Amino acid sequence: MPALPAGFIKALGRISPSAITDPDRLAVYEADGLTIVRQRPGLVVIPETTAEVCALVRLCNEWSVPLVARGAGTGLSGGAMPHAEGVLMVMARFNQILAVDDRAMTAVVQPGVTNLGVSEAVSHLGLYYAPDPSSQLACTLGGNVAENAGGVHCLKYGLTVHNVLGLKVVLPDGELVTLGGDNLDSPGLDLLALMHGSEGMLGVIVEVTLRLLPRPSQVRVLLAAFDDISRAANTVGAIIGAGILPAGLEMMDGPAIRAAEDFVQAGYPVDAAAMLLIELDGDEDEVAAALGQTLAVLEAGGAREVVTASSQADRARLWAGRKAAFPAVGRISPDYYCMDGTIPRAELAGVLARISELSNQHGLAVANVFHAGDGNLHPLILFDGSRAEEVAAALAFGSDILQLCIEKGGTITGEHGVGVEKINEMCVQFNTSELTLFHGVKAAFDCRGILNPGKGIPTLSRCAEFGAMRMKAGEERFPELERF
Amino acid sequence: MPALPAGFIKALGRISPSAITDPDRLAVYEADGLTIVRQRPGLVVIPETTAEVCALVRLCNEWSVPLVARGAGTGLSGGAMPHAEGVLMVMARFNQILAVDDRAMTAVVQPGVTNLGVSEAVSHLGLYYAPDPSSQLACTLGGNVAENAGGVHCLKYGLTVHNVLGLKVVLPDGELVTLGGDNLDSPGLDLLALMHGSEGMLGVIVEVTLRLLPRPSQVRVLLAAFDDISRAANTVGAIIGAGILPAGLEMMDGPAIRAAEDFVQAGYPVDAAAMLLIELDGDEDEVAAALGQTLAVLEAGGAREVVTASSQADRARLWAGRKAAFPAVGRISPDYYCMDGTIPRAELAGVLARISELSNQHGLAVANVFHAGDGNLHPLILFDGSRAEEVAAALAFGSDILQLCIEKGGTITGEHGVGVEKINEMCVQFNTSELTLFHGVKAAFDCRGILNPGKGIPTLSRCAEFGAMRMKAGEERFPELERF
Repeated sequence: MPALPAGFIKALGRISPSAITDPDRLAVYEADGLTIVRQRPGLVVIPETTAEVCALVRLCNEWSVPLVARGAGTGLSGGAMPHAEGVLMVMARFNQILAVDDRAMTAVVQPGVTNLGVSEAVSHLGLYYAPDPSSQLACTLGGNVAENAGGVHCLKYGLTVHNVLGLKVVLPDGELVTLGGDNLDSPGLDLLALMHGSEGMLGVIVEVTLRLLPRPSQVRVLLAAFDDISRAANTVGAIIGAGILPAGLEMMDGPAIRAAEDFVQAGYPVDAAAMLLIELDGDEDEVAAALGQTLAVLEAGGAREVVTASSQADRARLWAGRKAAFPAVGRISPDYYCMDGTIPRAELAGVLARISELSNQHGLAVANVFHAGDGNLHPLILFDGSRAEEVAAALAFGSDILQLCIEKGGTITGEHGVGVEKINEMCVQFNTSELTLFHGVKAAFDCRGILNPGKGIPTLSRCAEFGAMRMKAGEERFPELERF
Repeated sequence: MPALPAGFIKALGRISPSAITDPDRLAVYEADGLTIVRQRPGLVVIPETTAEVCALVRLCNEWSVPLVARGAGTGLSGGAMPHAEGVLMVMARFNQILAVDDRAMTAVVQPGVTNLGVSEAVSHLGLYYAPDPSSQLACTLGGNVAENAGGVHCLKYGLTVHNVLGLKVVLPDGELVTLGGDNLDSPGLDLLALMHGSEGMLGVIVEVTLRLLPRPSQVRVLLAAFDDISRAANTVGAIIGAGILPAGLEMMDGPAIRAAEDFVQAGYPVDAAAMLLIELDGDEDEVAAALGQTLAVLEAGGAREVVTASSQADRARLWAGRKAAFPAVGRISPDYYCMDGTIPRAELAGVLARISELSNQHGLAVANVFHAGDGNLHPLILFDGSRAEEVAAALAFGSDILQLCIEKGGTITGEHGVGVEKINEMCVQFNTSELTLFHGVKAAFDCRGILNPGKGIPTLSRCAEFGAMRMKAGEERFPELERF
């Protein structure tokens, strides 16, 4: 039985003759980076032009057929998980850099251009695009906007929302609107910011205007090893408190250090309890000054050993372990579940201690590798996906971590978004008035609710049903997926 | 005849016994900083507690009575202009700094705290609040958020939206919601950004969490004089293009220089065609490096003379002229009309030349003093408000400038907002789909339309009526004020 009405499929075929309906070919698209949940889409389209996107979106709206847009599918919260009775719109053919203005330091790109592709295309001008999620080799700008992606350098240079000047977006009625532009501010309501992190629920992005930055002339990377994880955590706050603003300030705990070192031989201190990776950038004098200050703070904070890398090769080696940390952890465990929550920096030491306790309680190991400077945790929970009780324990452990983040004044996502993964925790993070506002704003863009239904914002009835009390039972988090 | 129903006034009196209804006392509140338009409010309340605000907003909503919230009333676009048949809510008693966290570098303040008051209150901690509109001595944080205020330093440190982490907002149904928090990102739709620049149309702000910054150890101010205005304008782009990011980069033309010098004797070059004021901040080595680079760019750009100030007293003297430029121009003309538009930096020289032509066409002098680094123009149009033909000419000249900004790829506001002043130009800046989105989002917050009606977003019928063709007739911009 086809999941979509025959009349709709016929009309869609006239717009996009190459639409994919063959079940085997559809299987390729059944998950994004949150592979723990899978759903075969009703149909896949891979449009080539904005006019085609407009026609497709309008058609879905007329038939009230769910539409999920996706880029490279590297998202980690299931934001691009397909809808069984809907259209999955793959933006892979929107892969052109349309314009680069080196005087204004802007680039206009299509949403399917990769994050790293932008920096590579403008590097001959001495420019780059600052946000750098771990998946930057593969992930695309449309998805970066949809999830408001961060990365190692967002401490100094901000999230995607701070680096995007304008968007062209197709609304459900098929109209194309321009949000923002080339300027710092724009009159009217700030719909440009609203699109960031909106997870495909408000419109389909067809063009992105990016702010580029001049590549700093000098970069130093410091590795500081600690025998005590709390000392490392407290040193993070001390660095920022001293007025130093590193380009990146990352932390790895012992298990993450050892997994990474085993995998890529970055020269990490395998007997350390924790390490910090600190990148300083700017011109020569600026970096020299920051380096002196940072070394003093590290010494005062009890760092056992500090290594400073200045050459491109040495810096790349130090970063290699951090960048490979997720796959490195993947080598030592059948599966891992990457969490993403944010806490105030001052809570770092206490929260890491509590995660260690939770690890014992749930009987699952955890490795921590994260953006310490902005308090953005990424605990990797190690489990065996073939054992149902470990899957349940991993989900329960993850939910406990997210609630811990909320308790400490933080949030349930730093940069990975809500998607389907954290939709229940949204009921804890927000009250009814706040959720009602979200739904109202969503309806202003998409009154029929065709765009990525079931993601990002829980319905009030869902929150009533899966209330805070029941959320702790991790096994209840995903079985209801057919309800999306 | 009272403008408000007796039953409403009675119910309101039970919530706020000190409500002001005496016409003479109401007269004090009839304008904000856009004194060219005036409207006596139906009634004024000055609430003391959040509970009182909630009750007042709920009451207005029940009776469908317009509600305009205002801070210090320094706004320049009439965003806080009262409603004849509505309540003006003055937030002056919300003037407490509730908490300062020097480790997290945040402050929680009430909306009636002044902008400068925050920096003064945290200066003993070596911290400050970065956005600094010219009115910072008087303007308050609630209004700063409502208009997304900028200032001299927003080139490097961003607008208000980039420096506010969280808000507490009262919605029309009287519910209190929390938007954002202590963290860089927040899950759900970005309603925090949406509140910035929303001009009191979405909710009443009762608490603001601010990001503080460490005060830089070194500051230098450079004054560069030019014999040619185009050279000065092009040097602005050359500075940014060289990768220098000054804390402030301001430009003044000859008339502005002479008016300011006459007023405060800042030591400005009165025979120059234009001057740049450039502030560099950071630590010692950083500033020294930027200084060397900047001097080289200024020389290459054809600066006739460069003065560098490092002592606090010398810097203050150089800034004094810039900060007093508006009142200084006020001394040489019976009235002036301060415009606010933004253009791409590369268009600066051409747009200034065109403004000079328009000045001749309209027969009114103009002085330019503005945030050149972010392309944010502030032409001051000189006119005599007692002569009707000069008022009409000033409004027409202003409208021409705003349309010139749009033509050049810019926007009709940099930091002053739309208010009532630029509501017609919004019809030029945005298409029907975009305006419909604004109205939809507005309705999600305020379905009865009680919050600051007639400001910020024009109705579609208004745009149809006062279409682009008619807008050029400046005299038509304000006579219909009774329609707000």
